Amino acid sequence: MPMKIEQPPRQKNIAAPYLLFVGSARSRIDAKTAAGIAYWRPELCRGQLRLDAEAVDLGLPDMSIQQAAAEGVRTLVLGLAMPGGSISKDWVQTIVEALRLGLDVASGLHTSLSGHPEIRDALATSTASLIEIRKRNLEYPVAGYRKRTGKRLLTVGTDCSIGKMHTALALEAAMRAAGRSVDFRATGQTGILIAGPGVPIDAIVADFVAGAAEALSPDAEPDHWDIIEGQGSLFHPSYAGVTLGLIHGSQPDALVLCHEPGRLANSDFADLPLPTLEECAELHLRMARMVNPAARLAGISLNTSALSGQEANLQLQRAMDALGVPAVDPNRTGVAAIIQELDRC
Amino acid sequence: MPMKIEQPPRQKNIAAPYLLFVGSARSRIDAKTAAGIAYWRPELCRGQLRLDAEAVDLGLPDMSIQQAAAEGVRTLVLGLAMPGGSISKDWVQTIVEALRLGLDVASGLHTSLSGHPEIRDALATSTASLIEIRKRNLEYPVAGYRKRTGKRLLTVGTDCSIGKMHTALALEAAMRAAGRSVDFRATGQTGILIAGPGVPIDAIVADFVAGAAEALSPDAEPDHWDIIEGQGSLFHPSYAGVTLGLIHGSQPDALVLCHEPGRLANSDFADLPLPTLEECAELHLRMARMVNPAARLAGISLNTSALSGQEANLQLQRAMDALGVPAVDPNRTGVAAIIQELDRC
Repeated sequence: MPMKIEQPPRQKNIAAPYLLFVGSARSRIDAKTAAGIAYWRPELCRGQLRLDAEAVDLGLPDMSIQQAAAEGVRTLVLGLAMPGGSISKDWVQTIVEALRLGLDVASGLHTSLSGHPEIRDALATSTASLIEIRKRNLEYPVAGYRKRTGKRLLTVGTDCSIGKMHTALALEAAMRAAGRSVDFRATGQTGILIAGPGVPIDAIVADFVAGAAEALSPDAEPDHWDIIEGQGSLFHPSYAGVTLGLIHGSQPDALVLCHEPGRLANSDFADLPLPTLEECAELHLRMARMVNPAARLAGISLNTSALSGQEANLQLQRAMDALGVPAVDPNRTGVAAIIQELDRC
Repeated sequence: MPMKIEQPPRQKNIAAPYLLFVGSARSRIDAKTAAGIAYWRPELCRGQLRLDAEAVDLGLPDMSIQQAAAEGVRTLVLGLAMPGGSISKDWVQTIVEALRLGLDVASGLHTSLSGHPEIRDALATSTASLIEIRKRNLEYPVAGYRKRTGKRLLTVGTDCSIGKMHTALALEAAMRAAGRSVDFRATGQTGILIAGPGVPIDAIVADFVAGAAEALSPDAEPDHWDIIEGQGSLFHPSYAGVTLGLIHGSQPDALVLCHEPGRLANSDFADLPLPTLEECAELHLRMARMVNPAARLAGISLNTSALSGQEANLQLQRAMDALGVPAVDPNRTGVAAIIQELDRC
């Protein structure tokens, strides 16, 4: 089967194996990037570096920088958001040590690390590199609104951190296993660290977000699917603009709506209730149809990990009844029902 | 009357008087920035520099760089978008000459001029500065979604270049003349060159657009109005994300919807029809109400400059009938009817 015609922008390859820096993160959500890489690409991960015993355990061997260097680790991956927004001494010390021992350091943070004096000094005398995913290859044109060949699916959600990347990766894996022509298109630092190519869409200058999304998913063979990792939510007041630029540039044929039953309020603002599934699907579809009138909802993806099997089935059935499309939990039911639905797009 | 409590981020002051660079722009729309400054701040403008006789005439004295320097001009303002996106020889020569003669050069372009070898060389030996509005003071936090004191009006529109800045400046001028506590809040390069302070919102990294809009319009006295210059349109597929970030960060109490009767298609994409006024008002209001449930439409601003008086009255009446709020043309009717409506917000 012929593959896609063009390639999207590529990030410099990040050398495996990885040591995942977990810092003092107390939960998988706090160490979201590290947890995502450990889950989706365990073969790339040699160990984890936790700064204290209370830090979340990703099930990888605990390892110091020295041990990692001795075991052939190539890259220290900063796998969590920086607490407070400014870099702490612990972090600087770890990064400097990694660079001194010849490990590359990959960071998905907005905050530039290369300007820190100690890190800059370590870089000057190291053979290793600092790879700042949110600082590279960020020049894109304004969106041209041209209809592209091939098919596109975009995951959307009721909130941030609600399964958009996970669902997209699950769809890609299942479609690839079924012999389909498919690519995961990463739009966030975790997705890029997992997949290699991608655009850190939230780090793009606002005028060019939709243009970057167009470049991420170029013309392709008619039966090829790009599975584009969604970001934010139209209902999240800090990030809705990023979400909308991504929708407009992606021109999706199919949307998959991600949600976590039981999450009632916005994860950042407890006084902001989440929308209903119906409301959320309707608004995201409306925006997608501005650029692709054929866009349709292809499924719902629920994270039911906190529920019993019976409760999960009830939630999946309710979602299906409410929206008339398949509802899945990638980890419980697989995503086959959504893939079947794609044949109608 | 007590004025606002805080000040928004300030751009370095741009020294007047200005020489407006019109280049070879054939229309006021092509030389939108220059035309806006000449219209709103004629007292700041000493002359215009046109590269050929076909270039649009803004009604200012034609002036070479040498003449301008002799007449005490302080800043050459690049008052138009760069044709084609890359800088031409004509432009470089003009900028270099200005710097050599001690004129500052102010640019609102996305494209960085400081990296151009000849401009860099000229800067190195000049006492003058290159002021790149879209390159400075661009660090803002993620939006915090906190309700702020004071009142905010945001202009929105069916398209780009349809009167959002003009309407905001007209509202500010009329409210100031009526003794109200009011500030124009610039969000684009032209607005900033006219008003001084502001945020070039389309040059902000996507994750921080709503946060920048929050910073632009800080807490204020209860009866103070910030009149925020809108950008793009939720219906423009290249820029809708910028528009949405600006809406969410502004948390407007009042929207004013701008349109040009007779413009039927998107200005960048002829195959994309513009929304109806009703549709446009409804979607922008819906998005504004996510962050401020009290948001309401306070008026419609039509650019009827291409119409006869009778046709203009008909269009204004139709808009008023359709949406139940005052409809004005700032240049024909003034904006008093909208200001009255604000007392209901």
